[in-house]
Amino acid sequence: MNRNHQWLYAKQPTGRIGPDTFQWHETALPAAKAGEVLVKTRMLSLDPANRAWMMGKTYRDALEPGQVMSGFTIGQVMESHAEGFAPGDIVEGDWGWQEYAAMPAGRLVKRTSKAPLELLVGPLSVTGLTAYFGLLEIGQPKPGDTVLVSAAAGAVGTMVGQIARLSGCRVVGTAGGQDKCDWLVRELGFDAAIDYKAGGVRRAIAAACPNGVDVYFDNTGGPVLDAALSLMNLRGRIACCGNVSQYDVEKPAPGPMMVPGLVVTKRLRLEGFIVMDFYDRRAEAEARLARWVADGKIKAIVDIVEGLDKAPQALIGLFEGANRGKRAVRVA
Amino acid sequence: MNRNHQWLYAKQPTGRIGPDTFQWHETALPAAKAGEVLVKTRMLSLDPANRAWMMGKTYRDALEPGQVMSGFTIGQVMESHAEGFAPGDIVEGDWGWQEYAAMPAGRLVKRTSKAPLELLVGPLSVTGLTAYFGLLEIGQPKPGDTVLVSAAAGAVGTMVGQIARLSGCRVVGTAGGQDKCDWLVRELGFDAAIDYKAGGVRRAIAAACPNGVDVYFDNTGGPVLDAALSLMNLRGRIACCGNVSQYDVEKPAPGPMMVPGLVVTKRLRLEGFIVMDFYDRRAEAEARLARWVADGKIKAIVDIVEGLDKAPQALIGLFEGANRGKRAVRVA
Repeated sequence: MNRNHQWLYAKQPTGRIGPDTFQWHETALPAAKAGEVLVKTRMLSLDPANRAWMMGKTYRDALEPGQVMSGFTIGQVMESHAEGFAPGDIVEGDWGWQEYAAMPAGRLVKRTSKAPLELLVGPLSVTGLTAYFGLLEIGQPKPGDTVLVSAAAGAVGTMVGQIARLSGCRVVGTAGGQDKCDWLVRELGFDAAIDYKAGGVRRAIAAACPNGVDVYFDNTGGPVLDAALSLMNLRGRIACCGNVSQYDVEKPAPGPMMVPGLVVTKRLRLEGFIVMDFYDRRAEAEARLARWVADGKIKAIVDIVEGLDKAPQALIGLFEGANRGKRAVRVA
Repeated sequence: MNRNHQWLYAKQPTGRIGPDTFQWHETALPAAKAGEVLVKTRMLSLDPANRAWMMGKTYRDALEPGQVMSGFTIGQVMESHAEGFAPGDIVEGDWGWQEYAAMPAGRLVKRTSKAPLELLVGPLSVTGLTAYFGLLEIGQPKPGDTVLVSAAAGAVGTMVGQIARLSGCRVVGTAGGQDKCDWLVRELGFDAAIDYKAGGVRRAIAAACPNGVDVYFDNTGGPVLDAALSLMNLRGRIACCGNVSQYDVEKPAPGPMMVPGLVVTKRLRLEGFIVMDFYDRRAEAEARLARWVADGKIKAIVDIVEGLDKAPQALIGLFEGANRGKRAVRVA
């Protein structure tokens, strides 16, 4: 094997992403220089943020057509020209949708956990940490609080709901379709789950939250955010994690009417965060997540798609709600 | 004098408030019962919130047509049937737009400050405290930060700007009309002021804030909030104090498009507050404000309208931007 296969980001989508957003590309195996490491991709994380990067500068530069599609990755060191890395090491980084990459050592993090890669790509890594810090640090739930989470059946939502349950909260989620909702209640211990596609989402959330909402973990923006705002209790906290309802659309919906009016009268706090902001406490949080999973207190839900060639369709499916839990591609 | 004159709240406005929103009414002088105090109104505070109360439940019940128009008041005790109050005492409360009221003692606060009533009705009381706690506690400015404040020439805005200047910040305000803007810079020490009515408000704010905005004190919502959101620095704070651009209109504008998208990517915090939430620290804050005013470090700007009969027109004027600083009505 001395060829490298890649998916390039081909062109900016105008509406939903499709197969022509990406282009398959074959190139030479990259060479690692001094200070670099040659890595072989094992797992490729698929995240709603991948879509947001196509639309402009976010917390990182916008994607440029022609570049290798970006994405969080886990791989194995093949060859090292950098101190601290040796062949066989498991590393994570952001080298994108390709089989191999030559990466500067400073852009890699070595993983020493013995957990399966399926867990290291999500529940015990970025998505688990996103749920952990977003809920506990930004949302600040107290026992007895009602916690609402949108995209509850997704990678972050499944973790948020279970951590909220462990925190002694009433947990209500929104998801697309009754099947997912039933599954959230039956398998993950949600107190209630609401199919946002069934209509009447505000009324349904109100009925499921008879004491109002103290913490709303917002993965979606859009109509669920509007509904949540109107149901927040005094001094409620909204952890703004994502806006996935607006990523894969041609024309974004208007902003929430109740901002800032209701924010004032109810003394609400909306706060955005990026998981990397909390990486100084990463080890502590990962250890806690790993223990919860090992003890069976949290189910780590993963949805693994086999083969790099399936990556575009797997990301498209993410915006169609095809996944439950963390979706990732096993590359090798 | 054994008659009491009042302004009743006559009917809910559909668009802007007008003279027919209120109705002049004469009634008998009220009698104070046991536990009550007869107060004579000296000053009546006019606040944008007066308008918001007409539209529905906020942090207090909505106004009902037929009731005496509500408003923050300062008065003098005429007759006391309650412990702790004696004729001549200066008290504050919320007995509304009338010359006299019989008030339960528990709903009055005795003022012992020797400051003139013109200052006690605003800069050294509710509006000063709103600026103080909203800026310092919610906005958390650090020396060198850029602080933007909307409705900067108003009761709260004039105080916010000056407290921000004392905190070592670059201070930029928005106001209606070039005259007010020039005045903010010349008289109150703002680094820059922008006429939001002149158009191009986002570009003008951007030019006045070359290092971006760290703290936005939002009195208005609307287009200035939209512009501010797009110019906030990473981890910027927005203190949500009011939404005055949307109070006196028939149809509120859409919500801010950049919520929650930009809140996430920039890790912004939007937080609403009501000054009463901080009243456990009221004495400390009032003493500090009084010292700043006494030392000439802050100019307390008041705009006193003479006579209760002028109250409706004075409130209407508030939404036309007729005032500079704290507008109040001297009743007696």
